[in-house]
Amino acid sequence: MAENDFTLGLDRDLEEVQTHIMKMGGLVEAAILASAKALEERDTELADEVRRNDKLIDELEQTVNEECARVIALRQPAAKDLRTVLTVMKISTHLERCGDYAKNLAKRTTVLVQLQPVEGAARSIRRMAREVEMMMKDALDAYIQRDAELAADVRARDQDVDQMYNALFREFLTHMMEDPRNITACMHLHFIAKNIERMGDHCTSIAEQVIYQVTGDMPDENRPKGDRTPYASVEAEK
Amino acid sequence: MAENDFTLGLDRDLEEVQTHIMKMGGLVEAAILASAKALEERDTELADEVRRNDKLIDELEQTVNEECARVIALRQPAAKDLRTVLTVMKISTHLERCGDYAKNLAKRTTVLVQLQPVEGAARSIRRMAREVEMMMKDALDAYIQRDAELAADVRARDQDVDQMYNALFREFLTHMMEDPRNITACMHLHFIAKNIERMGDHCTSIAEQVIYQVTGDMPDENRPKGDRTPYASVEAEK
Repeated sequence: MAENDFTLGLDRDLEEVQTHIMKMGGLVEAAILASAKALEERDTELADEVRRNDKLIDELEQTVNEECARVIALRQPAAKDLRTVLTVMKISTHLERCGDYAKNLAKRTTVLVQLQPVEGAARSIRRMAREVEMMMKDALDAYIQRDAELAADVRARDQDVDQMYNALFREFLTHMMEDPRNITACMHLHFIAKNIERMGDHCTSIAEQVIYQVTGDMPDENRPKGDRTPYASVEAEK
Repeated sequence: MAENDFTLGLDRDLEEVQTHIMKMGGLVEAAILASAKALEERDTELADEVRRNDKLIDELEQTVNEECARVIALRQPAAKDLRTVLTVMKISTHLERCGDYAKNLAKRTTVLVQLQPVEGAARSIRRMAREVEMMMKDALDAYIQRDAELAADVRARDQDVDQMYNALFREFLTHMMEDPRNITACMHLHFIAKNIERMGDHCTSIAEQVIYQVTGDMPDENRPKGDRTPYASVEAEK
Protein backbone atom coordinates (compact mmCIF):
# COMPACT_ATOMS: atom_id res chain seq x y z
CA MET A 1 0.00 0.00 0.00
CA ALA A 2 1.39 3.42 -0.93
CA GLU A 3 2.12 5.88 1.86
CA ASN A 4 -0.60 8.19 0.53
CA ASP A 5 -3.34 5.59 0.59
CA PHE A 6 -2.35 4.80 4.12
CA THR A 7 -2.61 8.40 5.27
CA LEU A 8 -5.90 8.80 3.46
CA GLY A 9 -7.18 5.72 5.24
CA LEU A 10 -6.19 7.14 8.60
CA ASP A 11 -7.78 10.50 7.83
CA ARG A 12 -10.98 8.85 6.73
CA ASP A 13 -11.06 6.72 9.88
CA LEU A 14 -10.49 9.72 12.10
CA GLU A 15 -13.26 11.59 10.33
CA GLU A 16 -15.65 8.73 10.90
CA VAL A 17 -14.86 8.61 14.61
CA GLN A 18 -15.31 12.38 14.74
CA THR A 19 -18.73 12.08 13.12
CA HIS A 20 -19.77 9.61 15.79
CA ILE A 21 -18.52 11.83 18.59
CA MET A 22 -20.51 14.77 17.25
CA LYS A 23 -23.61 12.64 16.92
CA MET A 24 -23.11 11.50 20.49
CA GLY A 25 -22.69 15.10 21.60
CA GLY A 26 -25.92 16.08 19.87
CA LEU A 27 -27.84 13.30 21.61
CA VAL A 28 -26.42 14.23 25.01
CA GLU A 29 -27.23 17.92 24.53
CA ALA A 30 -30.78 16.99 23.57
CA ALA A 31 -31.05 14.71 26.61
CA ILE A 32 -29.93 17.47 28.97
CA LEU A 33 -32.50 19.94 27.63
CA ALA A 34 -35.31 17.40 27.43
CA SER A 35 -34.77 16.05 30.94
CA ALA A 36 -34.84 19.55 32.44
CA LYS A 37 -37.94 20.38 30.40
CA ALA A 38 -39.66 17.20 31.58
CA LEU A 39 -38.89 18.15 35.17
CA GLU A 40 -40.26 21.67 34.89
CA GLU A 41 -43.36 20.63 32.98
CA ARG A 42 -43.86 17.47 35.05
CA ASP A 43 -43.99 15.56 31.78
CA THR A 44 -43.35 11.90 32.56
CA GLU A 45 -43.70 10.83 28.93
CA LEU A 46 -40.80 13.04 27.94
CA ALA A 47 -38.87 11.77 30.95
CA ASP A 48 -39.43 8.19 29.81
CA GLU A 49 -38.19 9.09 26.34
CA VAL A 50 -34.96 10.49 27.79
CA ARG A 51 -34.47 7.27 29.74
CA ARG A 52 -35.00 5.13 26.65
CA ASN A 53 -32.73 7.25 24.46
CA ASP A 54 -29.78 6.82 26.80
CA LYS A 55 -29.27 3.40 25.22
CA LEU A 56 -28.35 5.10 21.93
CA ILE A 57 -25.73 7.17 23.70
CA ASP A 58 -24.24 4.11 25.39
CA GLU A 59 -24.14 2.27 22.07
CA LEU A 60 -22.39 5.16 20.37
CA GLU A 61 -19.78 5.22 23.12
CA GLN A 62 -19.16 1.53 22.55
CA THR A 63 -18.85 2.17 18.81
CA VAL A 64 -16.39 5.02 19.32
CA ASN A 65 -14.26 2.90 21.66
CA GLU A 66 -14.14 0.05 19.19
CA GLU A 67 -13.34 2.34 16.28
CA CYS A 68 -10.54 3.97 18.22
CA ALA A 69 -9.03 0.62 19.18
CA ARG A 70 -9.23 -0.46 15.55
CA VAL A 71 -7.64 2.75 14.28
CA ILE A 72 -4.77 2.32 16.72
CA ALA A 73 -4.29 -1.34 15.85
CA LEU A 74 -4.56 -1.04 12.06
CA ARG A 75 -3.25 2.45 11.31
CA GLN A 76 -0.70 2.75 14.10
CA PRO A 77 -1.05 6.52 14.16
CA ALA A 78 1.99 8.58 15.08
CA ALA A 79 2.27 11.23 17.79
CA LYS A 80 -0.28 13.86 16.78
CA ASP A 81 -2.89 11.49 15.36
CA LEU A 82 -2.50 9.15 18.30
CA ARG A 83 -3.18 12.08 20.59
CA THR A 84 -6.35 12.77 18.63
CA VAL A 85 -7.55 9.19 19.03
CA LEU A 86 -6.86 9.12 22.76
CA THR A 87 -8.56 12.50 23.17
CA VAL A 88 -11.64 11.23 21.36
CA MET A 89 -11.80 8.24 23.69
CA LYS A 90 -11.72 10.53 26.70
CA ILE A 91 -14.36 12.86 25.26
CA SER A 92 -16.70 9.95 24.63
CA THR A 93 -16.34 8.83 28.25
CA HIS A 94 -17.29 12.32 29.44
CA LEU A 95 -20.28 12.47 27.12
CA GLU A 96 -21.50 9.08 28.22
CA ARG A 97 -21.39 10.16 31.87
CA CYS A 98 -23.41 13.28 31.06
CA GLY A 99 -25.96 11.08 29.32
CA ASP A 100 -26.20 9.00 32.50
CA TYR A 101 -26.82 12.12 34.56
CA ALA A 102 -29.60 13.24 32.20
CA LYS A 103 -31.14 9.80 32.45
CA ASN A 104 -30.95 10.00 36.21
CA LEU A 105 -32.63 13.41 36.14
CA ALA A 106 -35.45 11.87 34.10
CA LYS A 107 -35.71 8.98 36.57
CA ARG A 108 -35.99 11.31 39.53
CA THR A 109 -38.61 13.33 37.64
CA THR A 110 -40.93 10.34 37.64
CA VAL A 111 -40.62 10.31 41.45
CA LEU A 112 -40.86 14.09 41.88
CA VAL A 113 -44.14 14.41 39.98
CA GLN A 114 -45.70 12.40 42.79
CA LEU A 115 -44.54 14.86 45.42
CA GLN A 116 -45.58 18.40 46.19
CA PRO A 117 -43.55 20.80 43.97
CA VAL A 118 -40.84 22.87 45.62
CA GLU A 119 -41.37 26.48 44.71
CA GLY A 120 -39.15 27.76 41.90
CA ALA A 121 -36.80 24.78 42.03
CA ALA A 122 -37.57 23.18 38.66
CA ARG A 123 -37.24 26.51 36.87
CA SER A 124 -33.83 27.20 38.43
CA ILE A 125 -32.67 23.72 37.55
CA ARG A 126 -33.76 24.16 33.97
CA ARG A 127 -31.81 27.41 33.75
CA MET A 128 -28.75 25.62 35.06
CA ALA A 129 -29.24 22.79 32.56
CA ARG A 130 -29.43 25.29 29.68
CA GLU A 131 -26.17 26.85 30.80
CA VAL A 132 -24.46 23.47 30.86
CA GLU A 133 -25.88 22.48 27.48
CA MET A 134 -24.33 25.62 25.98
CA MET A 135 -21.01 24.79 27.62
CA MET A 136 -21.13 21.35 26.05
CA LYS A 137 -22.00 22.73 22.64
CA ASP A 138 -19.09 25.17 22.80
CA ALA A 139 -16.68 22.55 24.14
CA LEU A 140 -17.47 20.30 21.18
CA ASP A 141 -17.25 23.21 18.73
CA ALA A 142 -13.89 24.08 20.25
CA TYR A 143 -12.80 20.49 19.70
CA ILE A 144 -13.85 20.41 16.06
CA GLN A 145 -12.32 23.81 15.30
CA ARG A 146 -9.27 23.22 17.50
CA ASP A 147 -10.12 26.51 19.19
CA ALA A 148 -8.21 26.79 22.47
CA GLU A 149 -9.65 30.22 23.19
CA LEU A 150 -13.24 29.00 23.04
CA ALA A 151 -12.21 26.06 25.21
CA ALA A 152 -10.73 28.42 27.80
CA ASP A 153 -14.00 30.34 27.77
CA VAL A 154 -15.96 27.15 28.49
CA ARG A 155 -13.63 26.44 31.35
CA ALA A 156 -14.22 29.86 32.85
CA ARG A 157 -17.99 29.55 32.61
CA ASP A 158 -17.96 26.52 34.88
CA GLN A 159 -17.77 28.94 37.78
CA ASP A 160 -21.20 30.34 36.90
CA VAL A 161 -22.65 26.84 37.08
CA ASP A 162 -20.96 26.32 40.43
CA GLN A 163 -22.51 29.54 41.71
CA MET A 164 -25.95 28.45 40.53
CA TYR A 165 -25.48 25.18 42.35
CA ASN A 166 -24.36 26.89 45.54
CA ALA A 167 -27.41 29.14 45.50
CA LEU A 168 -29.70 26.15 44.97
CA PHE A 169 -28.04 24.19 47.76
CA ARG A 170 -28.84 26.97 50.21
CA GLU A 171 -32.37 27.27 48.88
CA PHE A 172 -33.02 23.55 49.38
CA LEU A 173 -31.69 23.64 52.94
CA THR A 174 -34.08 26.49 53.71
CA HIS A 175 -37.06 24.70 52.17
CA MET A 176 -36.30 21.57 54.18
CA MET A 177 -35.93 23.40 57.45
CA GLU A 178 -39.10 25.38 56.89
CA ASP A 179 -41.24 22.37 56.08
CA PRO A 180 -40.16 18.75 56.64
CA ARG A 181 -42.65 17.65 53.99
CA ASN A 182 -40.20 19.14 51.48
CA ILE A 183 -37.36 16.91 52.61
CA THR A 184 -37.81 14.00 50.22
CA ALA A 185 -38.34 16.23 47.18
CA CYS A 186 -35.39 18.41 48.13
CA MET A 187 -33.09 15.41 48.48
CA HIS A 188 -33.89 14.50 44.87
CA LEU A 189 -33.67 18.08 43.64
CA HIS A 190 -30.34 18.48 45.37
CA PHE A 191 -28.99 15.40 43.62
CA ILE A 192 -30.26 16.71 40.33
CA ALA A 193 -28.57 20.07 40.87
CA LYS A 194 -25.37 18.33 41.91
CA ASN A 195 -25.43 16.13 38.82
CA ILE A 196 -25.90 19.12 36.53
CA GLU A 197 -22.97 20.77 38.26
CA ARG A 198 -21.01 17.59 37.56
CA MET A 199 -21.99 17.78 33.89
CA GLY A 200 -20.38 21.22 33.93
CA ASP A 201 -17.22 19.59 35.27
CA HIS A 202 -17.29 17.09 32.41
CA CYS A 203 -17.66 19.93 29.88
CA THR A 204 -14.68 21.55 31.54
CA SER A 205 -12.70 18.34 31.20
CA ILE A 206 -13.56 18.19 27.49
CA ALA A 207 -12.45 21.81 27.12
CA GLU A 208 -9.17 20.96 28.87
CA GLN A 209 -8.59 18.06 26.49
CA VAL A 210 -9.00 20.54 23.63
CA ILE A 211 -6.52 22.96 25.18
CA TYR A 212 -4.08 20.11 25.68
CA GLN A 213 -4.48 18.96 22.11
CA VAL A 214 -4.03 22.42 20.61
CA THR A 215 -1.32 23.84 22.86
CA GLY A 216 0.34 20.64 24.13
CA ASP A 217 -0.08 21.92 27.70
CA MET A 218 -2.66 20.83 30.21
CA PRO A 219 -4.16 23.92 31.89
CA ASP A 220 -2.81 23.71 35.36
CA GLU A 221 -3.96 22.91 38.82
CA ASN A 222 -6.96 24.73 40.05
CA ARG A 223 -9.07 23.01 37.53
CA PRO A 224 -12.64 22.85 38.71
CA LYS A 225 -13.56 19.24 39.17
CA GLY A 226 -15.61 16.67 40.98
CA ASP A 227 -17.67 17.33 43.97
CA ARG A 228 -17.62 20.75 45.56
CA THR A 229 -20.57 21.39 47.80
CA PRO A 230 -20.43 24.94 49.12
CA TYR A 231 -18.52 24.18 52.28
CA ALA A 232 -18.25 27.81 53.20
CA SER A 233 -21.98 28.37 53.11
CA VAL A 234 -22.51 25.22 55.10
CA GLU A 235 -20.11 26.36 57.76
CA ALA A 236 -21.96 29.63 57.93
CA GLU A 237 -25.17 27.72 58.51
CA LYS A 238 -23.97 25.34 61.15
CA MET B 1 16.19 -4.57 16.48
CA ALA B 2 15.50 -8.29 16.65
CA GLU B 3 11.89 -9.45 17.08
CA ASN B 4 12.73 -10.86 20.49
CA ASP B 5 14.18 -7.65 21.87
CA PHE B 6 11.09 -5.87 20.66
CA THR B 7 8.72 -8.24 22.46
CA LEU B 8 10.85 -8.07 25.57
CA GLY B 9 10.67 -4.30 25.43
CA LEU B 10 6.90 -4.43 25.18
CA ASP B 11 6.61 -6.89 28.07
CA ARG B 12 8.86 -4.78 30.22
CA ASP B 13 6.84 -1.68 29.42
CA LEU B 14 3.57 -3.40 30.23
CA GLU B 15 5.00 -4.62 33.49
CA GLU B 16 6.05 -1.12 34.43
CA VAL B 17 2.58 0.24 33.71
CA GLN B 18 1.11 -2.59 35.76
CA THR B 19 3.34 -1.73 38.69
CA HIS B 20 2.09 1.83 38.61
CA ILE B 21 -1.54 0.74 38.47
CA MET B 22 -1.05 -1.49 41.51
CA LYS B 23 0.66 1.32 43.38
CA MET B 24 -2.22 3.59 42.48
CA GLY B 25 -4.69 0.96 43.68
CA GLY B 26 -2.86 0.65 47.00
CA LEU B 27 -3.02 4.40 47.54
CA VAL B 28 -6.72 4.56 46.69
CA GLU B 29 -7.55 1.66 49.02
CA ALA B 30 -5.62 3.37 51.82
CA ALA B 31 -7.45 6.64 51.11
CA ILE B 32 -10.86 4.97 51.32
CA LEU B 33 -10.08 3.37 54.68
CA ALA B 34 -8.38 6.44 56.12
CA SER B 35 -11.14 8.84 55.08
CA ALA B 36 -13.84 6.66 56.68
CA LYS B 37 -11.72 6.29 59.81
CA ALA B 38 -11.23 10.07 59.99
CA LEU B 39 -14.98 10.53 59.75
CA GLU B 40 -15.79 8.07 62.52
CA GLU B 41 -13.06 9.29 64.83
CA ARG B 42 -13.63 12.96 63.94
CA ASP B 43 -9.92 13.15 63.20
CA THR B 44 -9.34 16.24 61.05
CA GLU B 45 -5.60 15.68 60.88
CA LEU B 46 -6.11 12.33 59.20
CA ALA B 47 -8.71 13.91 56.92
CA ASP B 48 -6.20 16.56 55.89
CA GLU B 49 -3.67 13.86 55.14
CA VAL B 50 -6.13 12.11 52.83
CA ARG B 51 -6.75 15.38 51.01
CA ARG B 52 -3.03 16.00 50.54
CA ASN B 53 -2.31 12.45 49.39
CA ASP B 54 -4.84 12.67 46.57
CA LYS B 55 -2.19 14.60 44.61
CA LEU B 56 -0.05 11.46 44.47
CA ILE B 57 -2.96 9.49 43.01
CA ASP B 58 -3.60 12.15 40.37
CA GLU B 59 0.08 12.20 39.45
CA LEU B 60 0.16 8.43 39.10
CA GLU B 61 -2.84 8.55 36.80
CA GLN B 62 -1.05 11.09 34.63
CA THR B 63 2.03 8.84 34.59
CA VAL B 64 0.01 5.78 33.61
CA ASN B 65 -1.70 7.70 30.81
CA GLU B 66 1.60 8.93 29.43
CA GLU B 67 3.19 5.50 29.67
CA CYS B 68 0.27 3.92 27.86
CA ALA B 69 0.38 6.49 25.07
CA ARG B 70 4.12 5.89 24.74
CA VAL B 71 3.72 2.11 24.66
CA ILE B 72 1.11 2.41 21.91
CA ALA B 73 3.21 4.84 19.89
CA LEU B 74 6.56 3.08 20.22
CA ARG B 75 5.66 -0.60 20.53
CA GLN B 76 2.53 -0.63 18.40
CA PRO B 77 1.10 -3.55 20.34
CA ALA B 78 -1.13 -6.00 18.49
CA ALA B 79 -4.65 -7.11 19.42
CA LYS B 80 -4.22 -8.70 22.83
CA ASP B 81 -1.52 -6.38 24.14
CA LEU B 82 -3.38 -3.36 22.84
CA ARG B 83 -6.43 -4.49 24.74
CA THR B 84 -4.29 -4.69 27.88
CA VAL B 85 -3.06 -1.15 27.41
CA LEU B 86 -6.54 0.24 26.81
CA THR B 87 -7.86 -1.69 29.82
CA VAL B 88 -5.15 -0.24 32.01
CA MET B 89 -6.08 3.28 30.91
CA LYS B 90 -9.68 2.66 31.87
CA ILE B 91 -8.75 1.15 35.23
CA SER B 92 -6.61 4.16 36.07
CA THR B 93 -9.54 6.49 35.31
CA HIS B 94 -11.76 4.51 37.69
CA LEU B 95 -9.14 4.54 40.42
CA GLU B 96 -8.60 8.26 40.08
CA ARG B 97 -12.33 8.91 40.48
CA CYS B 98 -12.39 6.79 43.64
CA GLY B 99 -9.48 8.82 44.96
CA ASP B 100 -11.51 11.96 44.33
CA TYR B 101 -14.45 10.55 46.26
CA ALA B 102 -12.21 9.69 49.21
CA LYS B 103 -10.81 13.21 49.13
CA ASN B 104 -14.34 14.57 49.09
CA LEU B 105 -15.25 12.40 52.07
CA ALA B 106 -12.28 13.87 53.91
CA LYS B 107 -13.33 17.39 52.95
CA ARG B 108 -16.86 16.87 54.24
CA THR B 109 -15.42 15.41 57.46
CA THR B 110 -13.81 18.75 58.24
CA VAL B 111 -17.31 20.29 58.00
CA LEU B 112 -19.08 17.48 59.85
CA VAL B 113 -16.85 17.65 62.93
CA GLN B 114 -18.31 21.12 63.50
CA LEU B 115 -21.85 19.77 63.54
CA GLN B 116 -23.69 17.62 66.04
CA PRO B 117 -23.00 13.93 65.23
CA VAL B 118 -25.82 11.91 63.69
CA GLU B 119 -26.26 8.76 65.72
CA GLY B 120 -24.66 5.67 64.23
CA ALA B 121 -24.10 7.24 60.82
CA ALA B 122 -20.31 7.40 60.78
CA ARG B 123 -20.02 3.80 61.90
CA SER B 124 -22.36 2.58 59.16
CA ILE B 125 -20.47 4.61 56.59
CA ARG B 126 -17.18 3.14 57.72
CA ARG B 127 -18.60 -0.36 57.35
CA MET B 128 -19.70 0.47 53.84
CA ALA B 129 -16.27 1.90 53.03
CA ARG B 130 -14.58 -1.29 54.25
CA GLU B 131 -16.82 -3.35 52.01
CA VAL B 132 -15.92 -1.21 48.99
CA GLU B 133 -12.22 -1.30 49.80
CA MET B 134 -12.36 -5.12 49.74
CA MET B 135 -14.17 -5.02 46.42
CA MET B 136 -11.42 -2.84 45.01
CA LYS B 137 -8.69 -5.09 46.37
CA ASP B 138 -10.32 -8.13 44.79
CA ALA B 139 -11.01 -6.35 41.50
CA LEU B 140 -7.32 -5.47 41.21
CA ASP B 141 -6.26 -8.98 42.22
CA ALA B 142 -8.63 -10.34 39.60
CA TYR B 143 -6.97 -8.07 37.06
CA ILE B 144 -3.44 -9.15 37.93
CA GLN B 145 -4.34 -12.85 38.01
CA ARG B 146 -6.70 -12.59 35.03
CA ASP B 147 -9.32 -14.24 37.24
CA ALA B 148 -12.77 -13.80 35.68
CA GLU B 149 -14.44 -15.74 38.47
CA LEU B 150 -13.15 -13.42 41.17
CA ALA B 151 -14.19 -10.49 39.00
CA ALA B 152 -17.72 -11.88 38.72
CA ASP B 153 -17.77 -12.21 42.50
CA VAL B 154 -16.83 -8.53 42.89
CA ARG B 155 -19.60 -7.59 40.51
CA ALA B 156 -22.15 -9.55 42.54
CA ARG B 157 -21.07 -7.93 45.80
CA ASP B 158 -21.97 -4.50 44.49
CA GLN B 159 -25.56 -5.31 45.43
CA ASP B 160 -24.61 -5.51 49.10
CA VAL B 161 -23.18 -2.02 48.90
CA ASP B 162 -26.33 -0.81 47.20
CA GLN B 163 -28.40 -2.29 50.00
CA MET B 164 -26.25 -0.59 52.60
CA TYR B 165 -26.75 2.69 50.78
CA ASN B 166 -30.51 2.23 50.56
CA ALA B 167 -30.72 1.55 54.29
CA LEU B 168 -28.67 4.66 55.05
CA PHE B 169 -30.77 6.80 52.73
CA ARG B 170 -33.89 5.90 54.69
CA GLU B 171 -32.11 6.44 57.97
CA PHE B 172 -31.02 9.94 56.97
CA LEU B 173 -34.52 10.88 55.87
CA THR B 174 -35.83 9.81 59.26
CA HIS B 175 -33.18 11.77 61.14
CA MET B 176 -33.95 14.90 59.13
CA MET B 177 -37.67 14.65 59.65
CA GLU B 178 -37.27 14.01 63.35
CA ASP B 179 -35.00 16.96 63.96
CA PRO B 180 -34.33 19.75 61.44
CA ARG B 181 -31.03 20.45 63.16
CA ASN B 182 -29.81 17.20 61.56
CA ILE B 183 -30.54 18.42 58.04
CA THR B 184 -27.17 19.94 57.17
CA ALA B 185 -25.18 17.03 58.58
CA CYS B 186 -27.46 14.51 56.86
CA MET B 187 -27.06 16.23 53.50
CA HIS B 188 -23.31 15.75 53.80
CA LEU B 189 -23.61 12.21 55.12
CA HIS B 190 -25.97 11.32 52.31
CA PHE B 191 -23.47 12.58 49.73
CA ILE B 192 -20.75 10.58 51.41
CA ALA B 193 -22.86 7.41 51.34
CA LYS B 194 -23.74 8.06 47.71
CA ASN B 195 -20.11 8.56 46.79
CA ILE B 196 -19.10 5.31 48.48
CA GLU B 197 -21.86 3.57 46.58
CA ARG B 198 -20.38 5.12 43.41
CA MET B 199 -16.95 3.77 44.34
CA GLY B 200 -18.62 0.36 44.38
CA ASP B 201 -19.81 1.06 40.84
CA HIS B 202 -16.27 1.89 39.79
CA CYS B 203 -15.00 -1.36 41.32
CA THR B 204 -17.71 -3.13 39.34
CA SER B 205 -16.54 -1.41 36.17
CA ILE B 206 -12.98 -2.55 36.84
CA ALA B 207 -14.25 -6.10 37.39
CA GLU B 208 -16.13 -5.91 34.09
CA GLN B 209 -12.99 -4.80 32.30
CA VAL B 210 -11.27 -7.88 33.69
CA ILE B 211 -14.08 -10.15 32.53
CA TYR B 212 -13.90 -8.54 29.09
CA GLN B 213 -10.17 -8.98 28.92
CA VAL B 214 -10.24 -12.62 29.99
CA THR B 215 -13.33 -13.87 28.17
CA GLY B 216 -13.56 -11.34 25.32
CA ASP B 217 -17.20 -10.71 26.30
CA MET B 218 -18.55 -7.75 28.20
CA PRO B 219 -20.95 -8.98 30.90
CA ASP B 220 -24.28 -7.84 29.61
CA GLU B 221 -26.82 -5.21 30.38
CA ASN B 222 -28.05 -5.05 33.88
CA ARG B 223 -24.72 -3.88 35.00
CA PRO B 224 -25.07 -1.85 38.17
CA LYS B 225 -23.88 1.64 37.43
CA GLY B 226 -24.18 5.31 38.14
CA ASP B 227 -26.71 6.83 40.35
CA ARG B 228 -29.45 4.67 41.79
CA THR B 229 -31.15 6.24 44.76
CA PRO B 230 -33.75 3.87 46.15
CA TYR B 231 -36.68 5.15 44.14
CA ALA B 232 -39.00 2.53 45.49
CA SER B 233 -38.38 3.44 49.09
CA VAL B 234 -38.83 7.09 48.25
CA GLU B 235 -42.15 6.41 46.64
CA ALA B 236 -43.22 4.53 49.73
CA GLU B 237 -42.34 7.56 51.81
CA LYS B 238 -44.10 10.19 49.79
